[in-house]
Amino acid sequence: MSDPRPAFVLVRPQMGENIGASARAMLNFGLEHMRVVAPRDGWPNERAVALASGAGRLLDGAMLTEDVPAAVADCTYVFATTARDRDLTKPVYTPEAAMEEAVRRGRAGERVAVLFGPERAGLENDDIARASAIVQVPTNPDFPSLNLAQCVLLMGYEWRRVSTRAGGMEMEMAGTDWVNQAELEALASHYETRLEEAGFFFPEGKAPAMKRTLRNMWSRLPLTRADAQVFHGVLRQMVRWKERG
Amino acid sequence: MSDPRPAFVLVRPQMGENIGASARAMLNFGLEHMRVVAPRDGWPNERAVALASGAGRLLDGAMLTEDVPAAVADCTYVFATTARDRDLTKPVYTPEAAMEEAVRRGRAGERVAVLFGPERAGLENDDIARASAIVQVPTNPDFPSLNLAQCVLLMGYEWRRVSTRAGGMEMEMAGTDWVNQAELEALASHYETRLEEAGFFFPEGKAPAMKRTLRNMWSRLPLTRADAQVFHGVLRQMVRWKERG
Repeated sequence: MSDPRPAFVLVRPQMGENIGASARAMLNFGLEHMRVVAPRDGWPNERAVALASGAGRLLDGAMLTEDVPAAVADCTYVFATTARDRDLTKPVYTPEAAMEEAVRRGRAGERVAVLFGPERAGLENDDIARASAIVQVPTNPDFPSLNLAQCVLLMGYEWRRVSTRAGGMEMEMAGTDWVNQAELEALASHYETRLEEAGFFFPEGKAPAMKRTLRNMWSRLPLTRADAQVFHGVLRQMVRWKERG
Repeated sequence: MSDPRPAFVLVRPQMGENIGASARAMLNFGLEHMRVVAPRDGWPNERAVALASGAGRLLDGAMLTEDVPAAVADCTYVFATTARDRDLTKPVYTPEAAMEEAVRRGRAGERVAVLFGPERAGLENDDIARASAIVQVPTNPDFPSLNLAQCVLLMGYEWRRVSTRAGGMEMEMAGTDWVNQAELEALASHYETRLEEAGFFFPEGKAPAMKRTLRNMWSRLPLTRADAQVFHGVLRQMVRWKERG
């Protein structure tokens, strides 16, 4: 089976620093297929290598081409990232929807590319015209500008998020050793008994309501076994302290 | 109605550049409430201002505090971002789930904070022990490191993505009067002080870890103001009981 991961294509990137930071951002999310179209300062690029630090092998393995058509020749579906609306009739995806599409196509054996434009001006309309669809990051309209590596980071993040999504909900505190109802009952009783001795439930007429409030609280709190032991320990210590006089 | 947007809290940030870039990343997604705890190079920070460019007003309006408790005193729910697993029993959220929670609570009138640790080491366990929950960005385990501004960018992106998503969410326990961090701090201190007197923290060598465990538990439990009053009352009663001899 072919590698289902999309290629990220940096089109005419200007600053080596941004190329290096993009490589790191890709690898942060497990993406490794970088392609570079006509980098302004030539190739290889020292500043890119310096900034890539642990992700240098993405640069070593990057496909270098002179233009966009050559860079995406083997791809069946191409996304173009843009910051602003263009007058082109083309589907516009959110990053999430785009990466869902990329994951689906990748799993079906297709090769997908995502184009990122140069820092200053973004992709040209000719580049975008070659893409299958547009992706736009939904930024604040009053302050929309993202730099190249940030845009790569967000797309990489979405790719990983979507591709590792397990169909279910997050497993909050999976494996946590929660108290069972018997343990909860023991804890509630321990407090009730000692507080009774200590004269907490006063006046007597209010005692049933006070006890119910306490029970309700214990039941509602998401207590682990360890938490329950702490609460038992706290109470035992207060009793010992009293008994020492 | 109160502003539903979370506060992003930079804890002991080192490089002014990262503070400035974080301000820009926040504003990219429409977030404006920055708080800064004990920045290494003092405040205001020239490099931060230079890098923030169009987002300088976030720095001008940032709340500056000496420690984390002061920075989150008015917040009812606090997320701590961490890169790696910690041995603390605390729910771990994905950025998406965390920002869903932040949006829901923000709309219910709560104030939510997200803590970001210093560049090199991340948040300390003592900071995390004060948080309600942990957020982890699901990065490539072989290359996980994100810098401060990247982490801010991703959380901001998720906040905007989730908060602009159509379709309302359930408001579980909307209108509940949750404790804020100052009240939680008072409760934790009350127990710590009395338990210290009662000889709970024994042997002495284990006292710091025992105290952290307790703090961690208080922060994690979803306590209402009424719950906090019950817990205060329980302890006060035990003390009175002891004092009666």
